[in-house]
Amino acid sequence: MTRTLYDLAGADPALRFSPFCWRTRLALAHKGLAVETVPWRFEEPLPDGCRTVPVLQDGAQVIGDSWSIACYLEEHYPDRPSLFGGAGGQAHARFINAWTDRVLHPVVARLVALDIHDCLAPQNQAYFRESRERRFGTTLEAFQEGREMALLEARALLAPARAVLERQAWLGGTGPSYADYIVFGAFQWLRCVSRFEPLAADDPVSDWRRRIMELHGGLAGAATRA
Amino acid sequence: MTRTLYDLAGADPALRFSPFCWRTRLALAHKGLAVETVPWRFEEPLPDGCRTVPVLQDGAQVIGDSWSIACYLEEHYPDRPSLFGGAGGQAHARFINAWTDRVLHPVVARLVALDIHDCLAPQNQAYFRESRERRFGTTLEAFQEGREMALLEARALLAPARAVLERQAWLGGTGPSYADYIVFGAFQWLRCVSRFEPLAADDPVSDWRRRIMELHGGLAGAATRA
Repeated sequence: MTRTLYDLAGADPALRFSPFCWRTRLALAHKGLAVETVPWRFEEPLPDGCRTVPVLQDGAQVIGDSWSIACYLEEHYPDRPSLFGGAGGQAHARFINAWTDRVLHPVVARLVALDIHDCLAPQNQAYFRESRERRFGTTLEAFQEGREMALLEARALLAPARAVLERQAWLGGTGPSYADYIVFGAFQWLRCVSRFEPLAADDPVSDWRRRIMELHGGLAGAATRA
Repeated sequence: MTRTLYDLAGADPALRFSPFCWRTRLALAHKGLAVETVPWRFEEPLPDGCRTVPVLQDGAQVIGDSWSIACYLEEHYPDRPSLFGGAGGQAHARFINAWTDRVLHPVVARLVALDIHDCLAPQNQAYFRESRERRFGTTLEAFQEGREMALLEARALLAPARAVLERQAWLGGTGPSYADYIVFGAFQWLRCVSRFEPLAADDPVSDWRRRIMELHGGLAGAATRA
């Protein structure tokens, strides 16, 4: 069976930096499912009228949206390692998903908005700049310029994750779960587009990030960086 | 077997407002376990050298700390309804616990700091005022005076919970879990000490709060208010 993942790419087709697509790539690796990734750029067509990536084509099935894909994989591959550790794990992961989307991502976007722009394919840069500058209410340059202050805010916002990782090795408990991949996606996004280091070396979050980069044959650690 | 919960009380011994104790009371009710609550006030002695409530005495066992109590109940009463919905649910609930303690509680404290003070037993008021004013860096009166602005911040901070509750009835999924009780504890704290309304009527969080108040024979809804 052919399994294909449409994956956001930069000017360099090997540069795959979408935090949502990283959630899915790590979820597929967690399940031990091989996948062929297809570089996709903003505004290109996608199967089944999807508008955003990730989109997973699994045989005849097309699934869009990273959360829906994770639920699909958990349901359709129940004999593979669990992504959620049960129904409660799935329900509670949704909170971590929402926290990452609504709290963590906006701060990461601020840290590396200009770096993201600079690694995009030329035909995407105008769209990205226009849509993000409208959303942020300022230029990408001005937005990223304030990143030393945003960095302190980002580190403070990580307090709940840090508190958990001081007590257990993974957000998933004794082993990584999809919740780890959700939060990690934000760091991988940043790491792929930028050389900016958001974490202090002695932050437990930093150690956890390194351990996720080593999972699944070093999948995330080996990613192409801008 | 005698089961006793040491529960923070106000000047009125029937006024039980600790968010951490409410987590435990709802967890006990969820498990269908009867308990006798004992009113406790700051600085009074507790069993086994515990310094903070809740403390649960379950036969010969003494367990302090709301998270530890929840884990104890889940482990020792496995045939009762699950608090976490599996190992993944327990691991992920820890994130929701940390988020509530570190993000939500400080904002609720700001909304009702003076109201809390005013309902405490006279012998606790000086301690509370002194320790909180040192922590907040201002008087309780000044702190609470800015609460209309803090309210907007509190509502914005609820975005992850709101996003989840727009998609599923409970943080626990199709039924309430300990994660629901963790977050609800913050609202119950506020509701017991104050008449200040933190939520807009059309907020999905408001509807969820009402449904938790109705659970377990209306346990939380029937609580004494200041």
